[in-house]
Amino acid sequence: MIHEMASILVKQGMGGRFEQGFLEALPLFKRAKGCHGARLERSVEDPLRYLVIVGWETLEDHVVVFRASEDYGRWRDLVGAFFAAPPSVDHTKIVIDDLATEEFT
Amino acid sequence: MIHEMASILVKQGMGGRFEQGFLEALPLFKRAKGCHGARLERSVEDPLRYLVIVGWETLEDHVVVFRASEDYGRWRDLVGAFFAAPPSVDHTKIVIDDLATEEFT
Repeated sequence: MIHEMASILVKQGMGGRFEQGFLEALPLFKRAKGCHGARLERSVEDPLRYLVIVGWETLEDHVVVFRASEDYGRWRDLVGAFFAAPPSVDHTKIVIDDLATEEFT
Repeated sequence: MIHEMASILVKQGMGGRFEQGFLEALPLFKRAKGCHGARLERSVEDPLRYLVIVGWETLEDHVVVFRASEDYGRWRDLVGAFFAAPPSVDHTKIVIDDLATEEFT
């Protein structure tokens, strides 16, 4: 599995609407080929900066299959209007994992 | 819990030694106050670029307590020599989590 890491800066005052759009987009990821789900994290230092992390079985499942799908257009329709700039996207592979599963406390 | 996100560029040919140093440093994180463990991810696009993700109970546990500790010095001793540039560090808070726990397949 790889992680898509998309750094997204949203427009001033649009954080709540972006988060709502992300929530509504979760089913699109859930049904995408090779997708292991998605997570949204918000920067502590800059609350307008978000990190979208999506798990994909392969790089192709994201950059070839998903980006060519109609659901990619739906995802952009749900959140794209709140972007202050084009997202910066990278992919990572886990090398060593000793991080406890997050708990919401 | 928050995530420390440190983006680290390592020197050419030093990836393996950096990964080994990270592995040796895991006990330092394990015993640090408020630490939930650490994960190392490597960029697919640029294999010299790593993302170190450390879970902390609070921001202070990382930037005040850990950075003032002797174990912070030990961490830098284990990996600092392989850095090509000073790491860029950010912190995030999970907003929405629908990402499956990683499996190593």
